[in-house]
Amino acid sequence: MSIIVQKYGGTSVGTIDRIRQVAKQIADRKALGNDMVIVVSAMGKTTDNLISMAYELTPNPDKRELDVLMATGEQVSIALLSIALNDMGYHAVSYTGHQVEIKTEGIHTKSRIVDINDGNILEELNEGKIVIVAGFQGVNEENEITTLGRGGSDTTAVALAAKLQAVCEIYTDVDGIYTIDPRLYPGAKKLEYISYEEMLEMASSGAGVMHSRSIEVAEKYKVPVLVALNTGDIPGTIIKELDNSMEKSAITGLAVNSDEAMITLNGVPHDIKIIADIFTNIASKDINIDMISQTTPVHKLVSISFTLPKTDLYQATQLLDLYKERIFTFSYESFENIVKLSVVGIGMKSQSGVAAKMFDILAQNDIAVSIITTSEIKISYVINPEDQQKAIEAVAKEFDL
Amino acid sequence: MSIIVQKYGGTSVGTIDRIRQVAKQIADRKALGNDMVIVVSAMGKTTDNLISMAYELTPNPDKRELDVLMATGEQVSIALLSIALNDMGYHAVSYTGHQVEIKTEGIHTKSRIVDINDGNILEELNEGKIVIVAGFQGVNEENEITTLGRGGSDTTAVALAAKLQAVCEIYTDVDGIYTIDPRLYPGAKKLEYISYEEMLEMASSGAGVMHSRSIEVAEKYKVPVLVALNTGDIPGTIIKELDNSMEKSAITGLAVNSDEAMITLNGVPHDIKIIADIFTNIASKDINIDMISQTTPVHKLVSISFTLPKTDLYQATQLLDLYKERIFTFSYESFENIVKLSVVGIGMKSQSGVAAKMFDILAQNDIAVSIITTSEIKISYVINPEDQQKAIEAVAKEFDL
Repeated sequence: MSIIVQKYGGTSVGTIDRIRQVAKQIADRKALGNDMVIVVSAMGKTTDNLISMAYELTPNPDKRELDVLMATGEQVSIALLSIALNDMGYHAVSYTGHQVEIKTEGIHTKSRIVDINDGNILEELNEGKIVIVAGFQGVNEENEITTLGRGGSDTTAVALAAKLQAVCEIYTDVDGIYTIDPRLYPGAKKLEYISYEEMLEMASSGAGVMHSRSIEVAEKYKVPVLVALNTGDIPGTIIKELDNSMEKSAITGLAVNSDEAMITLNGVPHDIKIIADIFTNIASKDINIDMISQTTPVHKLVSISFTLPKTDLYQATQLLDLYKERIFTFSYESFENIVKLSVVGIGMKSQSGVAAKMFDILAQNDIAVSIITTSEIKISYVINPEDQQKAIEAVAKEFDL
Repeated sequence: MSIIVQKYGGTSVGTIDRIRQVAKQIADRKALGNDMVIVVSAMGKTTDNLISMAYELTPNPDKRELDVLMATGEQVSIALLSIALNDMGYHAVSYTGHQVEIKTEGIHTKSRIVDINDGNILEELNEGKIVIVAGFQGVNEENEITTLGRGGSDTTAVALAAKLQAVCEIYTDVDGIYTIDPRLYPGAKKLEYISYEEMLEMASSGAGVMHSRSIEVAEKYKVPVLVALNTGDIPGTIIKELDNSMEKSAITGLAVNSDEAMITLNGVPHDIKIIADIFTNIASKDINIDMISQTTPVHKLVSISFTLPKTDLYQATQLLDLYKERIFTFSYESFENIVKLSVVGIGMKSQSGVAAKMFDILAQNDIAVSIITTSEIKISYVINPEDQQKAIEAVAKEFDL
């Protein structure tokens, strides 16, 4: 018995015709003798429409109820897909997060899966049925409906595959993972394989194909994940465990993120208590800061630069204004127009000199860099947007991306 | 502790503004110290839209999945109403049929409530919360989502009121129960009270204000039910137990049903086996036949007339065509244009001569009657549509309706 967990995103089930098309693809795979478990997202823009109704009522809707509201989107999709499959003569049954039991913990609208009760699913599969599960949703200890955050259906699919020891196939509106986003660099190559680590760094660096959390789960449980176009007829990319000896190039991919802003703090006393206080305050507002770099102290004052989501910039500057009053040397500058470029590759672990080569490329092309941060398999650079295309092309050429 | 169960129909929560208005009305009653349990229907035409998506896929959608689909409509309403109340500073929590546990039995799309677990609701009320329950839906023994049939939210509300020993208030787009539908007879009077029995006969005779099943439940558990306009500021009609001595008139109301057709079977052998076979066959197609009258036999042949929903007429005639071949004396006529007029009143139990008086009125006005059936508190007549208005006015005048 070979179980396949497939996930179809919102675009893939966006219309009645597309639902019919997806049903055909599922039926074809079922006919080959596979046990099929399908995870679906809400149709097209449904989730956005539901959220906007809530915000029409109030700018601050109750989060427990927002989850109840949003969860209806996937429930519509599972019912319609199941109706389509039953109409084709297959026996399909839909399950909400509540019915499967996808147990979650954590706050509403951002819950995390802690366990899945696969008893029902295995029973249905044994009876030859196709099981269709609502993505993005679960139920907490209080029996309340919860959701997993935007992109959460990917995590539902991977977690189900982990529990059922199945392979996982994510069908979406792109045909795989590319070395660089093809919209930014048409010459980018589609990867046949990518490691969990690299995919995670790519996703968290702005390559928006999959939700980071889903890749963390895939890595933890070693679930191989195929990412492919929703027509199902083009080979996609497989995310799996790879050792770096299998890699030829030091760099697997280049991620470009234009959704971040940068703030530079000047005249900060070189006192860890003060610095910690600033960053603790920012964190307390749920602002996720990313790259941080600090200069060496001059007259016991340092400059600190960091990046943060553009959407959080206003809130952060309001908070920093308070420090202007408290610390008379303190000032800050904010930069809304920056680009974060990240080169990712597990080859970096074994091949030295990648950072040096990158400096060389950027210097040769007159590209100014504001912040650099490095991890074991990633180097990120903050550059000016006008240098973006030049940088992408130079890096792609050098590393054959 | 006085618990009030209120139900708001689809029109009452049809827009974001109306949801806000309903929230205000609930808050006003809560502020008076009542414990509030609210049942809501799906917004406006939501259920119709959901169903039409299913029928776009297939003319025969799987009923288990149709229930999963339809149940999302009420889930959207409960979440939005709860968001509105929380925004006003009240602590409201929404419950799906599944979460309450509204336990049902019977087939999908037409399930019946067998029990309600009120433990959660009482706990929430004790904590001062407003509980908002999705109408129309429940869960069966297999933990599947079920629905109660069109109008089922009324039944949810009455069943909850029965379980919680509360009063029940049904808010809708009419301001009460009238002696005659005011659209048909503008001079109709609003009733202050009506008995369960009368309301049941009125509802099953085409007075569409409330679902029959909800009145059966109200009668069984002696739940007083207020039916009133959704603005909450006009006195409505209370449905409760009444003994006939409280009634002055023999007739409480007149119901008019134009949704039925009539079939007359001619040349049927006067043999109970043959007659039973015909009606068993019709019943096996889920066609609900209503009034039946049979002539006395002439040459061992009888004529039988009966009414049935217009929507079932075609299917019934197809079935009857088979008997033309089997029984050479057999023929039938179908009449799509008929009107069923029913006079209802518990006063009939004690006052004789109502039938005679009705005959007299109809005769005086030259109104031809095709079928007459009587029950303890109701007499129904099939007449021609062109006589409808004349009949309504004559009956209304005679019985002061």
